Amino acid sequence: MRISALAERTDLPVATVKYYLRAGLLHPGTATSRTQATYDESHVERVRLVRALSEVGGLSLATVGRVLEALEEPEVERLGVLGAAQRSLLGPDLVTLPPEAERSAAPASRAREFVRARGWRVDPGDPVLDHLDAAWQACDDAGLGLDEERMDAYADAVEQVAVVDVESVPAEPHAAVRQVVLGTVLVDPVLAALRRLAQQHVSVIRHGAG
Amino acid sequence: MRISALAERTDLPVATVKYYLRAGLLHPGTATSRTQATYDESHVERVRLVRALSEVGGLSLATVGRVLEALEEPEVERLGVLGAAQRSLLGPDLVTLPPEAERSAAPASRAREFVRARGWRVDPGDPVLDHLDAAWQACDDAGLGLDEERMDAYADAVEQVAVVDVESVPAEPHAAVRQVVLGTVLVDPVLAALRRLAQQHVSVIRHGAG
Repeated sequence: MRISALAERTDLPVATVKYYLRAGLLHPGTATSRTQATYDESHVERVRLVRALSEVGGLSLATVGRVLEALEEPEVERLGVLGAAQRSLLGPDLVTLPPEAERSAAPASRAREFVRARGWRVDPGDPVLDHLDAAWQACDDAGLGLDEERMDAYADAVEQVAVVDVESVPAEPHAAVRQVVLGTVLVDPVLAALRRLAQQHVSVIRHGAG
Repeated sequence: MRISALAERTDLPVATVKYYLRAGLLHPGTATSRTQATYDESHVERVRLVRALSEVGGLSLATVGRVLEALEEPEVERLGVLGAAQRSLLGPDLVTLPPEAERSAAPASRAREFVRARGWRVDPGDPVLDHLDAAWQACDDAGLGLDEERMDAYADAVEQVAVVDVESVPAEPHAAVRQVVLGTVLVDPVLAALRRLAQQHVSVIRHGAG
């Protein structure tokens, strides 16, 4: 199909599709003349993925680019898949972990103490812990009363989410990376919507009909 | 304190604090002369809240403004708190629910069928259901295999999150609105970080040491 048909199939202006091509978010079509190219279903799929990651997942186009690169990596050791995929979602200066020596000397923090106390097997140098510290601090600053006990109750529930996540990861490494990366980004909004609906349900059950 | 001290206390440029004042996100200080005003701890707290909602919660400043307005509402019926607070987080064109007649004729959708099958007591006209439909569709488009069975497993876990959420809401209406609005926005990033850490833990437990 021509680029105009690709734009129509994906509900985007032609200019946006051209931008994706220039930014390397979309692979080039097959040239049919010096100025024209033809596109196929793989292009439709890729454009939809870029849109989903940016619009539903809320990622910047730069981060979308990193996520797509992670999907292309030819061989990833099964055990390294999760960490590599998760790190591709963080900023470029966070992608490289500090050397082992510095990691074991990672600063004490409430998030690190929390996962240690829970017995979660997590690298203490993982930048996700810094994200948790910052998000927890923001809740404290807002006076939300998010103490260790409530955090533990959240963690119990989230551990069940993670079991579902991990069980859904296929064995084949390429498919595994895809599932982990996209599942992390695209399922977050599903969980956020479910949380709001479940809050309504629980609220009605506890406090009477709404 | 002067505006420069307020900016220093909150780690922001003076220009940003002035912008918050102009945009009505921050209440005016007490005038000490025709060109100067003095600020107190309530201003420090408010600036930190605006930052947390925009930087940690990822809200636009326009949405931050709507959230802050919801916090100011003097009297909200206890049972209406949750819906009002949740809707303040959605776009302005979504804040007003359609009339009852149209609501009962809300379009059939997978999200509506899903919550009905679960027995969740949710208004079928709630726009959060449309968000869930869109997020679910994005997962389908990406080939994540998020079927009803996996969605049910997620919903079981998220229901526990919601129980913790609802139990943390105080009885006093003003405090309740604050807890619901801020808890919805600021706890989402906490849950997202916990999910990534729990994925690592579950992955290590299932597949051997990482």
